[in-house]
Order: sequence, then C-alpha cells, then structure tokens
Amino acid sequence: MTVEKQYEVIGTRPIRPDGTDKVTGRALYGADIRLPGMLYGMVLRSPHAHARILSIDTRKAEALPGVRAVVTAADLPDLESKISELGEGTINLRYQSNNVLARDKVLYFGHAVAAVAATSIHVAEEALGLIDVQYEVLKPVLTAQEAMRPDAPILLEELRTDELGAKGTTPTNIAEHSQISRGDVEKAFAEAAVVVEREFTTATVHQGYIEPQNSTALWNVDDQLTIWCSTQGAFGVRDQVAEILEIPVSKIKVIPMEIGGGFGGKIGVYLEPIAALLSKKARRPVKLTMSRAEVLAATGPTSGSYMRIKMAANREGRITAAQAYLAYEAGAYPGSPVGSGAAVIFAPYKLDNVLIDSYDVVVNKPRAAAYRAPGGTNAAYAAEVVVDELAEKLGMDPIDFRILNGVREGDKHPGGSEYPRIGYIETLQAAKNSPHYQSKLEGPYRGRGVAAGYWGNYGGKSSASASLNPDGTISLVEGSVDIGGSRASIAMQLAETLGVAVDCIRPSVGDTDSVGYTEGTYGSRTTFATGWAAYELGNKLIQEFKARAAAYWEVDPAQVAYAKGVLTCNGRRLTLADLGSQMDDMGGPISASASVRAEKWGPAFAVHIVDVEVDPETGKVDVLRYTAAQDVGTAIHPSYVESQIHGGVAQGVGWGLNEEYVYDAQGRLLNASLLDYRMPTALDLPMIETILVEVPNPGHPYGVRGVGEVPIVPPAGALANAIYRAIGVRLNELPMSPARILAALAAKK
Amino acid sequence: MTVEKQYEVIGTRPIRPDGTDKVTGRALYGADIRLPGMLYGMVLRSPHAHARILSIDTRKAEALPGVRAVVTAADLPDLESKISELGEGTINLRYQSNNVLARDKVLYFGHAVAAVAATSIHVAEEALGLIDVQYEVLKPVLTAQEAMRPDAPILLEELRTDELGAKGTTPTNIAEHSQISRGDVEKAFAEAAVVVEREFTTATVHQGYIEPQNSTALWNVDDQLTIWCSTQGAFGVRDQVAEILEIPVSKIKVIPMEIGGGFGGKIGVYLEPIAALLSKKARRPVKLTMSRAEVLAATGPTSGSYMRIKMAANREGRITAAQAYLAYEAGAYPGSPVGSGAAVIFAPYKLDNVLIDSYDVVVNKPRAAAYRAPGGTNAAYAAEVVVDELAEKLGMDPIDFRILNGVREGDKHPGGSEYPRIGYIETLQAAKNSPHYQSKLEGPYRGRGVAAGYWGNYGGKSSASASLNPDGTISLVEGSVDIGGSRASIAMQLAETLGVAVDCIRPSVGDTDSVGYTEGTYGSRTTFATGWAAYELGNKLIQEFKARAAAYWEVDPAQVAYAKGVLTCNGRRLTLADLGSQMDDMGGPISASASVRAEKWGPAFAVHIVDVEVDPETGKVDVLRYTAAQDVGTAIHPSYVESQIHGGVAQGVGWGLNEEYVYDAQGRLLNASLLDYRMPTALDLPMIETILVEVPNPGHPYGVRGVGEVPIVPPAGALANAIYRAIGVRLNELPMSPARILAALAAKK
Repeated sequence: MTVEKQYEVIGTRPIRPDGTDKVTGRALYGADIRLPGMLYGMVLRSPHAHARILSIDTRKAEALPGVRAVVTAADLPDLESKISELGEGTINLRYQSNNVLARDKVLYFGHAVAAVAATSIHVAEEALGLIDVQYEVLKPVLTAQEAMRPDAPILLEELRTDELGAKGTTPTNIAEHSQISRGDVEKAFAEAAVVVEREFTTATVHQGYIEPQNSTALWNVDDQLTIWCSTQGAFGVRDQVAEILEIPVSKIKVIPMEIGGGFGGKIGVYLEPIAALLSKKARRPVKLTMSRAEVLAATGPTSGSYMRIKMAANREGRITAAQAYLAYEAGAYPGSPVGSGAAVIFAPYKLDNVLIDSYDVVVNKPRAAAYRAPGGTNAAYAAEVVVDELAEKLGMDPIDFRILNGVREGDKHPGGSEYPRIGYIETLQAAKNSPHYQSKLEGPYRGRGVAAGYWGNYGGKSSASASLNPDGTISLVEGSVDIGGSRASIAMQLAETLGVAVDCIRPSVGDTDSVGYTEGTYGSRTTFATGWAAYELGNKLIQEFKARAAAYWEVDPAQVAYAKGVLTCNGRRLTLADLGSQMDDMGGPISASASVRAEKWGPAFAVHIVDVEVDPETGKVDVLRYTAAQDVGTAIHPSYVESQIHGGVAQGVGWGLNEEYVYDAQGRLLNASLLDYRMPTALDLPMIETILVEVPNPGHPYGVRGVGEVPIVPPAGALANAIYRAIGVRLNELPMSPARILAALAAKK
Repeated sequence: MTVEKQYEVIGTRPIRPDGTDKVTGRALYGADIRLPGMLYGMVLRSPHAHARILSIDTRKAEALPGVRAVVTAADLPDLESKISELGEGTINLRYQSNNVLARDKVLYFGHAVAAVAATSIHVAEEALGLIDVQYEVLKPVLTAQEAMRPDAPILLEELRTDELGAKGTTPTNIAEHSQISRGDVEKAFAEAAVVVEREFTTATVHQGYIEPQNSTALWNVDDQLTIWCSTQGAFGVRDQVAEILEIPVSKIKVIPMEIGGGFGGKIGVYLEPIAALLSKKARRPVKLTMSRAEVLAATGPTSGSYMRIKMAANREGRITAAQAYLAYEAGAYPGSPVGSGAAVIFAPYKLDNVLIDSYDVVVNKPRAAAYRAPGGTNAAYAAEVVVDELAEKLGMDPIDFRILNGVREGDKHPGGSEYPRIGYIETLQAAKNSPHYQSKLEGPYRGRGVAAGYWGNYGGKSSASASLNPDGTISLVEGSVDIGGSRASIAMQLAETLGVAVDCIRPSVGDTDSVGYTEGTYGSRTTFATGWAAYELGNKLIQEFKARAAAYWEVDPAQVAYAKGVLTCNGRRLTLADLGSQMDDMGGPISASASVRAEKWGPAFAVHIVDVEVDPETGKVDVLRYTAAQDVGTAIHPSYVESQIHGGVAQGVGWGLNEEYVYDAQGRLLNASLLDYRMPTALDLPMIETILVEVPNPGHPYGVRGVGEVPIVPPAGALANAIYRAIGVRLNELPMSPARILAALAAKK
C-alpha cells in the first residue's frame, strides 16, 4: 500500500449524502413520477426472434376508448446509417432507431414493434392486443459461431464482410473484423518450451440492475420536450433522443431521477424516444415502465462469445507469445464490446509477440449493451485459464508466474501505448502476501484459483457548480448521475480542496438545463473526472473568497491567505461562515462553476483469489473464500471502493457460475424472470475480502484512478482455475453451472 | 421617449419561453406535486379575532385512524424576539413563528392554531373537528385609529409606546412611530397663499393572486428537509424556515414550483414550516394547500390606513410645505409598510419643508404582507387628492402644476437622498401630450382625474449560471422565480450581451441547491438585478469562448475577437455552433456562473389619467378610459412592461373602487370568497393605454429600472380626482364603492 500524500477528507468514510433518502424509500425514482393528466404507455414486442414485418394495423387499438396515441417506427425519422458517439463506444444511429422501434424486421424476441398511450395501464394493455402485426417469420441464428457460417441466415442485408477494414461483397453477419499485431507469434510458438491452446465459449448475461427502465416524457405544443428517466447520463439521453428524433438538443431537457443500478445497461435509450413520440401525439405526459421480463428480453445484455487462445512460454517462465481469436455476439445490431475484450485479454502481460483477431457478429438476440468493463470478463476468463495452465506446466506458482510476466510502468500494452505509473506488481505482491493466499486449503473437491484482470478506465467531460450558503456551507451541483456513491466522492474532493469538513458540502445532481455538459456515469470515470471538476471548482471558489476578503480588508488578493476554511491577512481573519453570513455586504452571492475534459486516467489492475468446494453429487460450486486485491489509486472513500469491488466480484461470480440466457430453437427467451435467470444472492457469497493497493494516478490532482469496472474482470477465470484444482477438469464454457460440472466430472471418469 | 442606445434583442417582443407550458396547463405548480406515500394536511384556524388560547387537546384527533401527525405551536421552537431581514423589510422572528402557528393568543379570525396530516384530505378534515381548543375570547380592535386609543384592547402585551425610538412604559398597539422632517412646515404653512388639509381612510385589501398558497415538505430521518412550494423566492423560504425551525439552511432544499401570482403576498411563509413539522412527525411527505377562504382570511393582506395630509403653495403655484400623519394597520404583528408609504407620499414633489409622522399599529386582522409597491397606494391616494385640490385652488392644470413642482435629477427625496437621472418630468410631459389628455371629455357625471406616483425600486442579490450546448445554444439557470416574464427578460439580456438571438438561450429557474443565492422576485428587482447577473455571465462566457478559440488557433486570447456569436482571428472563424459541437476537443464543456449584488436601481415615476362616469342612481363608477405613462428605463421586453402596467392599474382600480375586507363587530371576516371580495374583471376595465417613457437608468448596464410596482401607486388618487370632477365631491375613503358614492351624493344635496 503506497500512500504518497496525506489528506484530511480523502480516505475517510463519511455517510453518503443520499443514504437516508434511499434506505427510507424517499428518494425519487422514475417510477415515482406522477404528472397531472399523465397517460400510461406500453410497448408491443415481437414474439419472433427473426422476422420481416409485413404490416402493422393499429386502427383497432386507436379506436379503443381511452387510447390516446399509438406509435410505430413509421413515426420515427428514417435515419441514414451514421456513426455517433455513445458512452465509451460508438453507435450507428439508424440501428439505434431501429432498436427503439423495429422498422422492417424484428431481430430478436422482445424487439419493440409499437407502443400505446392510454388513460390507464389496463387500457394500454388491452390496446396492445388489438394491434395486428403481420410477420414473415425467418430462421434465427443465436451464436457467433453459427452466425459466421457462410450459410447462416442474414440479419442485416446491407452488412458486407469487413476484412480488416476492406468491405467485401457477400452479405454477412460479421459487422467488423479488426486485428492487433506485434512481433511474430508463429516464430515464437515454434521456439517455445510450453504452448497451450484452448477454446472457450461464454453465455449471454444481463447487467441485472434492480430498477427496470422507465421514462416519462412531456412533449408540449411548443415542441419543448422534457424527459424524466433512469439513466447513467442525462446528457447522453438528450443527445440520443435529439439524434433519433432529429430535433435540436436545446429543445430537450432531461431530468435524471435516482437510478437503481445501471452497470452500463442504462447508457443507451430504449423507452425515451417512444415516450416522447407518444406524448407528442397525445399532447399529454406519458409514462412508460418496463417489466422485469421486458428488461431481460429487450435491454442489455452483454455478449456471449466464442474464443480461441494460444500462449507460449520459454523455459525460464517468460511468456513469449500470445494469440487470440475473439468472436463476440453483438446481438441484433453491430457493436459488441469485442474491441474492449481485445484490449483486456493480454494487457497484464509483457509481450513481444501478440496477435489478436476480433470479430463483431450480429445474432438474433437483444442488441448488446455495455456491462461493467464491457467485454473484459469473457476475454480475461479465457486468457487467465490458459495462463494458469502455462504456470502449471512450468511448475510455477500462479502469482509468481504473473509477477515474472507482469507489466510495469513503461511497458507496452498490446495496443501499443506505454503504461504510465501502474500498480499491477504491487497488487500481485499484496495478493501473494494476503492472509488468504498464505493460508492452506484442505479437503476433497476443494480448490484455490487465481486470476488477474485489467481495465483501461476513462476520463472525459464533466462539470460542476457551487455556491456559498449563508451558514458557510456549500451547495454543489454535479453533472454526474450518482449510482455508486459519487455524491460523496465528488463532495469529498471539493471538501479536500477547500480544506473543510465534508458535511459542509451539500451535493446534488443537476439536470441537462442546470449544469454544464457531463458525460454519463460509466467507464469508471465519475470520481476521476467529475472529481477533477470539483477540484477546479474548489480552486475557483478559493480565488473568489480571497478576492472578497481582499476587497473587504482593502488589500491585494495576493496578500490574503486561505487554509481550512479560513481567510487571513495581517492578523485579520474570516471563516467561511463569516463570509457566508456577510457576503451580502461583501459584493453579493458567491458562486462558481467548472468544466473539465479529463485525460490521463490511470489503468486499473486486479488480482483475485478464490477458494471453492464442488459438490460431486449435484455439481454445485460453493464459494468458500474470496479475496480481491486491486490497485485503486487514491481511495477517496474506501468504503465505496470496497463496495465497488464487492459488487464487481458478485456479478463476476454470477457470470462465472450461473447466469445465462436460455433460448429455445426459435430464439424465444425461456428464462425472462429473476427466478429463472439466476443471479447470486447474499446466500451464494462469502464476505468478500478486499485489499486496496493505493498507487496514486499521477495524472489526477488527487491520484484517483477508476475502480468500478476492473473487479468484474477476474472472477470467472479465478473460479475456473479453482474448480480445476478442485475436480481436475478445466471448464471451457461459462457459466460453470451444476449441469456442466456434472458433465465434466462424468467425462473425466 | 428617450432612447440612447440601440439594441438587437432588447426592445423586441419574443414569445415567453414558459408560455406554452402555462397556456396548455402543463406547467407544474405546487398543487401538482404528488409524492409516493404522501399525506394530506389541513390547518385548524381560529374562529375568534382575539382570544387567549387556554388549552389545545389533540388526543382525539391523533387517535383517528388515518391521522399520522398533529402539530401545534408547542412543536415550534419558542423563539426570542429577533429582527431578521425579509424581502424588502424586516420581521421579528418570534412574531413570524406565532403567525405560522399561534402560541398563546390568536390575533385574527383565521389565525392558524393546529394542523393535521392524514392519509386523505377527508380524514384530515374530520380530525380538525376533533381538536379541542379552549379560548378565552377577548375584545378585538380592527382599525388603526381605534387601536391607538389609550383604552384599546392590547394585542401584544410586550409592546410599549415607541416615541421616535424611545421606548415608553405603557402597553400599546403602536409598534413604531418614525418621522421624516426637513425645513419648517409650521412657518411655511403660516406664510402660504393656499393651504389644504384633509383626512383619509383606506380599507384592508388583498393581493388577490389566483393561485392559493401550497407547500409540500419531506423531512427525512437524516433531518434533510425538501420543500416544494409556490413562492416569490426559494432562498427566502429557505431562510425563513431555517430561522423559524432553528435548523441550518444547508439542511433545507426549496424547490420553487411555477407561481400563479404573488404581488408581495408570497414572500413570507405560512404553510412551509407546518408542512415540515408534520412531515418530521409522520416521516412521510406532507402536502398542504389553502382554500380561497384561507387565503383571504389568513394571508396577505395589505394595510388599511388612516392619514391626515396638509399641503401649502405660494401664489406662483410652488408647493412650499407638506405634512403627513400616517397610521397604517400592521395586522396582528408589527410590520406594516407605513415606512414605504412615507417614502412614497411626497416623493414626486420638490419640497423644502416636509414633516411626515408614521405609525405602525397592530390590529386584529391578518398580519400585513407586502403588496406591490407596499404602502404606496394608500399614501399616494391621499397626497394626490390634496395636490389636485391645491392645483384647483390655484387655477392650474393638474399636470402643469406637477411639472412646475416635479422632482428632477439632483433634487432631494423627502428622506434626504439625491435623485439620480429620473424621468418624472418627461413622463408628465408625455401624459400631457397624450391623445387621451388632449381629448375632450364631455357629458354629465363624467370626470377626468390625474395622479402621479413614485416607487423607489430595489436591486440586491442575484445569481445565474449557464452552459454552452453542443448545438450552440445556451442553457441558462436563473435564481429568480419567474412571475411576470423574467425568464424572457433575463434571457434577452444574456442574448444581448452575447449578441445572439434570444431563442438561442434556454432559461430555467433553479432551486436552492442548484444556483447561487438570489433574493426573491419583489421590489421590481428581477429584470434589474438578475438581468445584471446575466450580463456579467455573458461577459464571462465570452472570455471563455475567446480562451478556447485562442488555444485552438494557438494565439493569444487578446487576438481573438468576438461579436454576434462568432469568434474571429486572422481570417479564421468559429461560430458558437462550431464551438459547441467541437468543444469536446477544445478543452471540454463550457460553463460559467455569475452573482451580483446590484445597487443603483433607478426610481420609477408614473402619471395616470382616467376618465370616469358615475351612475347617480346606483353609485357605480365606470372607467371610460385609462392612460398610464411611466418612466420604465430601458424596456427590455415592451409587452411585459405594458402588461406590468396593465396589471398594476387593474389592481389599483380594484383597490380604489371596490375591494375591501368586511368584518363584523367580533372581527369575523364576512367576505372570504372571490364572489364577495370584489376584484375587477375584464368587464370592469377598458383597454389600458400605456406610454413607455424610456429614460435609461445610468446605474445598470442596459439602463433597466424596475417597472412592476409603480403602476399600482397612482390609480386610486386618479380615480378620486376623476370622481370629484364627475360629481363635485372629494371622496376621502377607499374603496369609493357605490354605497359611498351614493352617500356622498346625498350629503352634497
């Protein structure tokens, strides 16, 4: 644990400002919105995974008493294929629009086809049954491997085989093929002492946020549109709705309500443009909420994948080459996180020879959305199992093997960039020295696994503003939606900058009209970038405090000193409370705002250790002990950092052991409920031990590096390695569910 | 009409940004709030005008199923008498608290005694009937004159006769006596050619806003309090609630909803502390709304008054002396606007000898609240009738008489300050030259009256913030509540400063957590002071635009020129739309904030001309024609300036002719409905002609001076003078209702 600076507020564990509102049920979520004259909307969804829409007849629905509006894709502008930025990736606007409401074809079970607004939800539901959609049902294709076959059913007729940038002429489901290449892997494999080559598949899994999507819109007769919704980024919703509906952003105000989880799944819009269109037609506010079945069938999920990994090492245990073939399911429209998977897969290893081929493949499942370190878990699972096997073949301890081959400052990432100061080696050493790793694990069907993980993190655009209150406290408005405690982590950075107690800062989240442009809460960026805005804001406030005191004392501002909430000059003294109560007579109110485009976000590394016990009768895997070590940079609020790690591990365990979308041969989702889609509960998990390795990011004023995503990267790989130690079989398929464990045990016999 | 500068946006008449939401019923007012788990509150009010509270037994009410909380004054901190600022005046916090919920005594019919929160409004109403209040009924006193008698019932036992600052020892209803004195009035009266002395009374009248008071509060278990309400100033509500409940302002967030009129009556709080206390006890959100009867009986009104005026002139028509005795009813607690009345009464006249005695007198009526140019209408009515009589005795035209005696830049206000550049003489001349004044009025029982009016206006603290949108538009957040079109008038000043079209600015109103401290919308200050903040904000944005362009072009910011939304340097060019779309790559989001404490507000003068016809059978007065000339400084949005004049005249006509509180001998209000409390309707008024005299205020960057209050000052006097011309009797009592006109006609015969 490296601590280079000591802080007053940073590193403490104050109670979160929104905590009480949330635990007492008083925090207002999108579903709590009730406007005068509000209508209730429902969405008609496709019962087919792949079909051509021949016709949609909405007349009967429109004639039903109480129905005020019906919309279909015909009400949306028919957009050109145009690439736009979205969150950490890019989107094709036409596909984004077609995903909101299917235009010519439905591409997955649950694909939205039409929507109704009515005076009650029951009338809306009845009206859905009156919409007559004629389909020509087509054969679906459900996995990347199947979809890449030359004879596969084609989802998007305009797609052409894209061979490393060159457009082909044959219709295809491969949206993109890209390659990372350095050195000569073939030569290195030929010269290696040990080579391991394995193939892997992973299932489609969902982000699993507790709060379903919801959106309430009011499109008034002056064409001003107001949207209340659950989102990771209000400005992102504004941008997407503007693009999909072809209206200026200045006509739209997005009010982000509290959010009950997102994990990447609430960056893209689903309901917002529909609610807006319904409101435009009905001239009334319209509210749409999803059921859990709709959430599972038609939002999220993240990509299932097929991967082939080949790695080699020399006699000294140095990894000499690494090759990967990654085919990720994009779902219905291009845009899987396979690129991020490629960036993650070999990132922890110092490599001279590397070759990664990535394929983005459309299949008849819901369009993939970002999910916490998008694409990272699939890739790291595959690579870490191969690394484990390499270490085993070399007779090396898996952590020692990683220390030998781990990247340090100045080493190159497979993508070519040079690592800044990172804490991977420190994290490996902390894991090795942990009580968990130093303990012995004994007993039959028990095993311990280790895996590492990398995530690049992100920075970007953030804004914050503040004003001094008469009692000396400060109201802070953040452009970032607060999902995981960012009101606290941003307020703490402002408090640190100002040298005041954190409860002197009163943070709130702004809407798109009331605060400067701020990207969504994703990419582990919020505490990093919005915190940076808070730091700039604090410095602006201090300048203003000094200027006011200087004018009051009739001295030059440079003569005024500020420290810990107190201004001084020649023995005179003013606290912020003094300044607050007297500012009326010292030039009026004090306010400031700051915007940043934060770069130099520091990459994050995690090393996980897990002990499991396998029940040979049922195939069930019990997680006995779990330790997650992570380079978290400066931990602003250590409790939230630990919680981010707990959350990432929990999701990673679900992904590794149980979660999967189950489709029938027609592509109908069979487990669209939380009873059948099996996420881990508290009973499935031990207390997750965390080790915070604090290697400050030199690119940030307080050394912050993102912490939220990397903890989901190692768990599946660590579990696979632990299960191998427990039962002697390496599982090459996620989830490692009881059925697959039993099959593996049977095959071994 | 003086126009010294030409503007691009200022002076135009764009559609108001909130217009559509308001005319389509979509704007959200306080009554529209519905929160999950919300309770409904009702207030128990005193049936007596003056009584001691012996006991309050709430047990039966508390036991009623559905009742979740009952509060009385025992739940409020027992505050010391402490003076605090409120709007344009000051308040005694203890009295403010006692007015919210009566502690020992009830002092007026309708005084709040207890309140209930229940699961429905019906249960709440039933519970009110179960609260047992034991009163010792006391004799009420209802007018200032009666209350000043030595044997009058005493409202507040602690009040002592206050003779010009010296505390007496006898209990009294006179809360304060103050004096303005210059020269020697006695000597001047003795030497005068003409002396007129008259006495006047005016009735208690209400502000008459359409939207009743309402307040919804959520006091959560972490003691964070959120209030949604209809108010003229969110920060003022925050301050008052903090003081009354003795909690820090930083624990309170006030969200101002749209407001359906205030006119001064929505500066002080009534329901907010009660809703907060009920929510604190019930741990649920609680909503309180007033009925119209509650509004009339227990909010507002403005003071009834008793006045004696004596004025003298020499043979040349110069006014040589003016004396006034003003006794204003404060209602239940000290704080009538008699001081403002004293500042208004002789303000239009150049005077060497002046003596004004002002008395603030408590009576058993609701506590007086500010009402548009508080106290000005009463005083100007009295003075303008006396001035009219003086002119008549001298055989002079009433406008010429006022031009001869009118104040100019450099003259002294009776209070001693020197007038800055004002437009009173220009306004008199405009009135004189108006088609109305140049026309002849003929026919029996018809008469034309003229009166002048003054209002000092105000400036004060305001904040605004803004951010550039990707489409080149600008989101503007104002701290000012928008009552009369200030979203437009502030946005227009920002647009002017930036040199862009007004529809490039998207204004909204912030809550107390999201924008810098801003005083309420009162004192004709908003377009002046918040507009000034917008001007400062615009200049800050331009600096930031230049800095971004300079960094992009790699030049010094001083080399970058900015005009009309375009940045230029050496032939290179960037529009705001360019900058907006590219700012991500030019340093990130652009935002700014500005706060001002605006001084040098310019005083306003108005001259009104009215033609009336009196029906000798019924005593009804018909307003035939009305022209209002006013020095409005620079008219930012002339339509709204005209509308402010229309509104002020309409209210002044109601005050002059019809409106009055009618009490029985026990002090019970007999006309607490809009059927019985007779405000003018459109049928009672002609189209009001306006003459905007634009003498820019040199104290403001755009020459703004307040326009909202002065139009209510002259109407009652102008009507009295017109009625005198029509029937030959000078009425010395307001309202000049049919009954009083008939009585005057009878007395004349």
